[in-house]
Amino acid sequence: MSSSRAANPATDPAASRPSVTFPHRHLLGIEGLSAPDIALLLDHSDHYVDLNRAVEKKQSSLRGRTIINLFFENSTRTRTSFELAGKRLGADVINMSVATSSVKKGETLIDTAITLNAMHPDLLVVRHQDSGAVALLAQKVGCGVINGGDGSHEHPTQALLDALTIRRRKGSLEGLLVAICGDILHSRVARSNIHLLNTMGARVRLIAPPTLLPAYAENLGVEVFHDMRKGLTDVDIVMMLRLQMERFHGAFVPSTREYFHFYGLDYAKLSFAKPDALIMHPGPMNRGVEIDTEVADDIHRSVIHEQVEMGVAVRMACLELLARHLPNWRGTTPPGL
Amino acid sequence: MSSSRAANPATDPAASRPSVTFPHRHLLGIEGLSAPDIALLLDHSDHYVDLNRAVEKKQSSLRGRTIINLFFENSTRTRTSFELAGKRLGADVINMSVATSSVKKGETLIDTAITLNAMHPDLLVVRHQDSGAVALLAQKVGCGVINGGDGSHEHPTQALLDALTIRRRKGSLEGLLVAICGDILHSRVARSNIHLLNTMGARVRLIAPPTLLPAYAENLGVEVFHDMRKGLTDVDIVMMLRLQMERFHGAFVPSTREYFHFYGLDYAKLSFAKPDALIMHPGPMNRGVEIDTEVADDIHRSVIHEQVEMGVAVRMACLELLARHLPNWRGTTPPGL
Amino acid sequence: MSSSRAANPATDPAASRPSVTFPHRHLLGIEGLSAPDIALLLDHSDHYVDLNRAVEKKQSSLRGRTIINLFFENSTRTRTSFELAGKRLGADVINMSVATSSVKKGETLIDTAITLNAMHPDLLVVRHQDSGAVALLAQKVGCGVINGGDGSHEHPTQALLDALTIRRRKGSLEGLLVAICGDILHSRVARSNIHLLNTMGARVRLIAPPTLLPAYAENLGVEVFHDMRKGLTDVDIVMMLRLQMERFHGAFVPSTREYFHFYGLDYAKLSFAKPDALIMHPGPMNRGVEIDTEVADDIHRSVIHEQVEMGVAVRMACLELLARHLPNWRGTTPPGL
Repeated sequence: MSSSRAANPATDPAASRPSVTFPHRHLLGIEGLSAPDIALLLDHSDHYVDLNRAVEKKQSSLRGRTIINLFFENSTRTRTSFELAGKRLGADVINMSVATSSVKKGETLIDTAITLNAMHPDLLVVRHQDSGAVALLAQKVGCGVINGGDGSHEHPTQALLDALTIRRRKGSLEGLLVAICGDILHSRVARSNIHLLNTMGARVRLIAPPTLLPAYAENLGVEVFHDMRKGLTDVDIVMMLRLQMERFHGAFVPSTREYFHFYGLDYAKLSFAKPDALIMHPGPMNRGVEIDTEVADDIHRSVIHEQVEMGVAVRMACLELLARHLPNWRGTTPPGL
Repeated sequence: MSSSRAANPATDPAASRPSVTFPHRHLLGIEGLSAPDIALLLDHSDHYVDLNRAVEKKQSSLRGRTIINLFFENSTRTRTSFELAGKRLGADVINMSVATSSVKKGETLIDTAITLNAMHPDLLVVRHQDSGAVALLAQKVGCGVINGGDGSHEHPTQALLDALTIRRRKGSLEGLLVAICGDILHSRVARSNIHLLNTMGARVRLIAPPTLLPAYAENLGVEVFHDMRKGLTDVDIVMMLRLQMERFHGAFVPSTREYFHFYGLDYAKLSFAKPDALIMHPGPMNRGVEIDTEVADDIHRSVIHEQVEMGVAVRMACLELLARHLPNWRGTTPPGL
Repeated sequence: MSSSRAANPATDPAASRPSVTFPHRHLLGIEGLSAPDIALLLDHSDHYVDLNRAVEKKQSSLRGRTIINLFFENSTRTRTSFELAGKRLGADVINMSVATSSVKKGETLIDTAITLNAMHPDLLVVRHQDSGAVALLAQKVGCGVINGGDGSHEHPTQALLDALTIRRRKGSLEGLLVAICGDILHSRVARSNIHLLNTMGARVRLIAPPTLLPAYAENLGVEVFHDMRKGLTDVDIVMMLRLQMERFHGAFVPSTREYFHFYGLDYAKLSFAKPDALIMHPGPMNRGVEIDTEVADDIHRSVIHEQVEMGVAVRMACLELLARHLPNWRGTTPPGL
């Protein structure tokens, strides 16, 4: 039994390298991570890209660990990506969605968290519709917490998978000119990407109508544009955002047709970017709203499917690095657990 | 590590026999399979029947493989049967139902498929309410696809489990007289069974009211009857179909009571079949609508529970045979993946 | 392969002790269990408490076994607790909830059970809204059945986890004075606890308004109180029950505010209990309805989170003890299976 659990250098990339330590208990956001923290996560992810492309996509480094996916908001791809990541590392993965949970019976977020915590999970992956909810929850539990997206705050694994995609294509993030385009206001993806790209030495432009920009946009260390042609000029990376129509409480855009005319990515607007600029989108796409369907499917420029692929690898790296050093955090467990 | 993954003749039926090859990348339907293809699937299934009856029901032949059950339509038994099959073979199995998926957010079927494909599953099991949707999806992915039922088109693993049930009881399919009774029009089960039984040398009768028969029924290589007594005369197998009331967009039958009177299987009608005729039903049954409850539970004649049992074995065989040779199909992966 | 499945004394607590036998095929309720049966389950659970607190929380004693969680009623914590328990023992665990099941298509409870049974699960964990439904189902299947809660009848694993929590804190159940307070009428938790505590030599008090007591309360071998202060006097254990507002078909309490005034646990009422009395609640709590939020969170008195922790251990013990001797029950399999 014990021999099968020992790290095997032939199949376990982590075992073949000097032990590395990720100096955080939780992954709640990109804000607060240093450049070496981010580089460590990306380096670790590269190994898992190779594993995921092999016929046998299984490791035993998280055998005997329990991961709970606690999703207060639905998400096909993020939940599946984390579930796959956990299972491929050998962990036991439990999915819990609010639709079938005690939250309906009036239990609070915190009671739900503390209840799950008492079952001794090693890691909780939490998605919640409210900004800050995941960080609040992390204060109440003894396990590690990964933010799977909270309100319009952060979505750190999305920013990491975007960074991994770019780094593998361009060699480095440093000095790149990156345009993030569309609904910045509601986008946790934008917020996490801005932090990451700034930290890693890229230059960020935001392109959006004034109604879809946060009030403090200029203070984020970015350049702001309202015109796609100007904003896209000479950029290396075009990150399109989903128009989150399901979050719109007011009228932010006159119509999706007009939105596409001014802010949808088509070849005409794309021609202002560098000839080898990459097209990115976190998915799911609204084809014909924020992105032209031909541009989305351009096999020479679009790396949208690669982003999804990198997502599994990045989540494996996050799970593995957080779980590896969880025992060291034991002394700091909240009282009573 | 590697030793535990090597095929073990004592526990792995496939390892003890000469390597066999299923010459198809996907299992989209019975139409297009040859008699040897079908015989191979059934032979392979026989081994798994024994495994499933043992105390330890686990193999490692699909260890490290990822199977995604992508169900756009609910189904207790089919989803569970595939999930069990995959897990007993050692695969990582992920369930995804549309009720909680991005399809709600407006993502297309194809985008969903391509997104999942980027996570490197080895096999997708897909159920969809539209005929042809599964075949369309299969063209867009690099993994193997099993049709778990598409619209009123095909449900190949149901026909295979029916065939396995019959073959184990009667020794062979060849020369048997099989009546398929009820709602042929809406039935993917009927369509897959007609193809399989014709290919394997059985003779097929369809018994249904004219409103529940497809227009081209006579061209399917079958005999058509509108009267149960005449149609059941001397048959070896009575396959009842579920009256799919949830699919009825118009009024196909005057009332379920009248339907039972004319087309429901009771002992009076059954008496026209051979004395040792088997009673089959794909489930879930509408007791008192298409089948009398005593006939359904007749432990001497009804093999309805055996069909469910064979279902897990057949799905293990399909998963194992498709996964085994997937690496050989790599050269034909769609571009960009 | 076989060596990795052999019991390993170093990691498998069961292997290091003389073989013990739980003399029941199913766990349908506490009623009918003897004191030694209960003690065996609790002793076995103690081992799993330690395992669950370790970094590696995995055994292989149920490897190759299949557990199906069949939940006709939603429950976050119970379903998750059983799922975790099964996975940590190495079993394949399948979740099935009625929301996505054939029950919607008109299939009967019994057909659902027999269908699942044909897939050769080893254990079914069943929760159902109707009292007696789980016992009925158990008569129709060849596998072992654990009652995960049926109507207002029994919830045996809840009573066992309560008993384990108490025994680990107080050393023994014998001679303890236990008050069960609140909605006794609708509570399967109360019913199972009354049976268990009586069997193990504790003395039970029920405290509730007359409208929330069953008609035959006095016949259960308990003392009945309608006043919290009198009922709580000198008790060792205060078990609060959830006010099951979602089950209320009539008006059982005038208002939740008045209910809290008379029957909600606050420090004033708690002061009548012994100074070291433990506070328990099966969760999820209605804070401010049946329990004051400060009392619930009192880290010196409240063992509510410990109950959740014990729940996983108790369920591992139940699954393991039932599964271990299932092969011996084979001769008594219902006909036709």
